[in-house]
Amino acid sequence: MTGASQDQAFPIGADSVAWLDTVRFDPQGLIPAIAQNVENGEVLMVAWMNRESLAETVATGRAVYWSRSRQRLWRKGEESGHTQTVLGLRIDCDADVILVEVEQTGGVACHTGRRRCFYRRLEGGAWQETEAPLVDPETIYR
Amino acid sequence: MTGASQDQAFPIGADSVAWLDTVRFDPQGLIPAIAQNVENGEVLMVAWMNRESLAETVATGRAVYWSRSRQRLWRKGEESGHTQTVLGLRIDCDADVILVEVEQTGGVACHTGRRRCFYRRLEGGAWQETEAPLVDPETIYR
Repeated sequence: MTGASQDQAFPIGADSVAWLDTVRFDPQGLIPAIAQNVENGEVLMVAWMNRESLAETVATGRAVYWSRSRQRLWRKGEESGHTQTVLGLRIDCDADVILVEVEQTGGVACHTGRRRCFYRRLEGGAWQETEAPLVDPETIYR
Repeated sequence: MTGASQDQAFPIGADSVAWLDTVRFDPQGLIPAIAQNVENGEVLMVAWMNRESLAETVATGRAVYWSRSRQRLWRKGEESGHTQTVLGLRIDCDADVILVEVEQTGGVACHTGRRRCFYRRLEGGAWQETEAPLVDPETIYR
């Protein structure tokens, strides 16, 4: 609270949880989190956070999500190595969506091996792939 | 499908609905839609779309959402005048999030009168407002 500048890097001291109480998690205790590449503004992916993963994200400066399919914390990159360094966190007017400003290790955010999950664009009445995988997904997950 | 270029402007012919069947709406028939400013990459807001609002968005080239609070179609800007011209639509790998590339009329996307809903940033352990309203919200909604 004292002398924080806009450029302050994560992790920050989490001695107060008032900021965490502001967050409006849904009835399942989750909030959607949008990861945006700070270098070029690309929206990389959308995942979910619960209170614990959001607190750990802030405490460590690494993006931590909640995996709904595995029902456990998902420390992004724990298997793939494609971690996300968190440079900033924003929350929207309704406090029910989080925007995570990240540096994407390896330049690959998507489990398909592409740099972002939004690699399909509606063109000519069909979803067209606009970019190819940068790495073989088979080599990401062992 | 024929000769569509990446720069093709909306609206596009919606003579096929195969693209719409690809979209994975949630059990309530909704999908989160992220509106991103194509000019500077800013994430402006997140709202919801149902099948009807997504189809109308594509048919008209204007962003149309589903208002959960009002339980009706929400043609963005219908009251405020702050419409969104849609230049592109993307879908993520799981086909359960839509990214809407927009030109924001009036430069104000948020109902608070700010250019984007993500005007609060976590700094020094608290959510700090990083930008002021550009217009008085009282003047937006009559």
